[in-house]
Amino acid sequence: MNRTFIPNELTTPAVLVERAVLVRNVAAMAAAMAAMRIDLRPHVKTHKIPEIAALQLEAGAVGLTVATIGEAETFADAGCDDVFIAYPLWLTAATASRLDALARRCRLSFGVDSPEAARNAGALLGRATRAAVGVLIEVDSGHHRSGATADSLVGIAEAVTGSGLRLGGVFTFPGHSYTPGGAGPAAADEAAALVGAARILEDAGFDVPRRSGGSTPSALLADRNGLTEARPGVYVFGDAQQLELERIGVDGIALCVAGTVVSRHESEPRRVILDSGSKILGGDRPAWATGFGRLLDHPEARITALSEHHATVTWPDGARLPELGARLRVVPNHVCLVLNLVDDVWVCDEGAVVDRWSVAARGRNY
Amino acid sequence: MNRTFIPNELTTPAVLVERAVLVRNVAAMAAAMAAMRIDLRPHVKTHKIPEIAALQLEAGAVGLTVATIGEAETFADAGCDDVFIAYPLWLTAATASRLDALARRCRLSFGVDSPEAARNAGALLGRATRAAVGVLIEVDSGHHRSGATADSLVGIAEAVTGSGLRLGGVFTFPGHSYTPGGAGPAAADEAAALVGAARILEDAGFDVPRRSGGSTPSALLADRNGLTEARPGVYVFGDAQQLELERIGVDGIALCVAGTVVSRHESEPRRVILDSGSKILGGDRPAWATGFGRLLDHPEARITALSEHHATVTWPDGARLPELGARLRVVPNHVCLVLNLVDDVWVCDEGAVVDRWSVAARGRNY
Repeated sequence: MNRTFIPNELTTPAVLVERAVLVRNVAAMAAAMAAMRIDLRPHVKTHKIPEIAALQLEAGAVGLTVATIGEAETFADAGCDDVFIAYPLWLTAATASRLDALARRCRLSFGVDSPEAARNAGALLGRATRAAVGVLIEVDSGHHRSGATADSLVGIAEAVTGSGLRLGGVFTFPGHSYTPGGAGPAAADEAAALVGAARILEDAGFDVPRRSGGSTPSALLADRNGLTEARPGVYVFGDAQQLELERIGVDGIALCVAGTVVSRHESEPRRVILDSGSKILGGDRPAWATGFGRLLDHPEARITALSEHHATVTWPDGARLPELGARLRVVPNHVCLVLNLVDDVWVCDEGAVVDRWSVAARGRNY
Repeated sequence: MNRTFIPNELTTPAVLVERAVLVRNVAAMAAAMAAMRIDLRPHVKTHKIPEIAALQLEAGAVGLTVATIGEAETFADAGCDDVFIAYPLWLTAATASRLDALARRCRLSFGVDSPEAARNAGALLGRATRAAVGVLIEVDSGHHRSGATADSLVGIAEAVTGSGLRLGGVFTFPGHSYTPGGAGPAAADEAAALVGAARILEDAGFDVPRRSGGSTPSALLADRNGLTEARPGVYVFGDAQQLELERIGVDGIALCVAGTVVSRHESEPRRVILDSGSKILGGDRPAWATGFGRLLDHPEARITALSEHHATVTWPDGARLPELGARLRVVPNHVCLVLNLVDDVWVCDEGAVVDRWSVAARGRNY
């Protein structure tokens, strides 16, 4: 972000998006993926905003990735014609009928990580949907969250095809890339898991069209021989995690939360309090992070505590504390949480508000 | 909560409120405060739901506490006639005019913790508002967030009255009560800070009508000679923090998040994954907590990791893992965050959905 001021007409706390930086980030990732001949399918849970998805698709993304059926509905409503729900869905009659409706409107794919989930989907989805959708098997590449192990892959693929569904490929999320020094090894794990899973399935006679990897830290490190597509999300905005992991620089930060100094204390503990608390910044703080976010224009400051409407910010000894009423720009630790906490963001260009975007998929948890 | 099932018609993740427990919790706190002759002014940032505020007011609450001007507007819209914004406001022309409008509709009070904030409010608020509102000085009782120290109180009170505003009293939030064994000492700190601040101000010739304390852990421990009012919030629902701090029992839990087992792994790490992640549970995890929430019907289980749409749950060796598709009830660590993440809650009675309440003040961050 450039060092523009916070527009006076905004009441804090407010989410600001710097359009020029956003556009640059979108173009840079698209170019990097094109150079590696990997399909870019950005994860839009990060922003939940159709206007940003449109920028990504215009820049060459092959489709979108979402986490929930509700997000898929929002982006299909906005005109996206190719959506991957990168999540191991356990369908019910109600959610299966929503997938039936989605499959009539767009190219649809989704995840499973067990034979039971595949058979459950096959039993609940309509015939036309079963023929149309792609089912991708989630593979555990070391994050140990959801995802199948190598020995269960063939059984899952048999359940997929045996239920009248089409195997669309394999996918993984290398969540262990979000640690200092973790991106390189996690990217290697990711490629090895996808390539290994595809080989096992192909050896058993299955076609594996997509090998889909995720995560912004690992995306630019992806081995071009391993992945057919990548699903980074955070890269559009950047955040304090990416900054402290040195995956991006300050110039790559496209989103901040504007906060006002509402309380100021020269006595110990020497601090100011901003009105941007966890109800707008999100409360994530990895053990390796230096605090609950960073101040864009004060790299020396630390957010040492966060409650719902208070961010406690400390400065080094001798540094002058900002005055009461000062408005500061906070870079959140994990930007995906922020967009789920507000209804709108203010789009800025050279210090002026030029647009207001609605966070259309906010709260679409199911 | 009683051991009822999750209604079949709900798609997970979903927030369930057990009406009978909620009503009991509301009545119990009202009775306890009445017995201590302390005015109950519940903090409605916990629920953000007018229907629950109405229950609290019917049970004898003297008014409501909110954290933001936006919340005050929502509850004034819903008919509440006495609202305290328990926050050190730094006003702008825009927010001052919103307070002017609010002061015409309800009894209004708000906080400051500096002479500058008091003078700023005096300069921006209309004459009628200055005469009508009560300004309470926030005191630091040991949480070291916002709040004035003893030596600055008289200067702040002079700035309040010198700006044509009325001193409404003093308030504090003993946030250090949210630790094991912390409630007792924090309640003592709270009473001492309020009584001490009131004495300093009264000795200087000021009238101090309200001594207002906060926090559910300390509310029932409040020294009846110290506080004139209390502002607990979490007591309406309870949460896993209160459970693990032993401030409530399982019978007092009135809210849970229903989640579905979408992934199940007998191999190490042995676990199931629920679809209720941090985008509905909130991500708070104090260092002393055993995990990111608790399972209401499985006290032996632990939520060892949480990402946006995944809760990783582990069971002790030998215990049987729940099956894929099973629906489990999760008690969030910090319930105030949950209500800021959903648009609606499902009100249940004996296992059936009997109502759906809108979270009217969700996202009212300013």
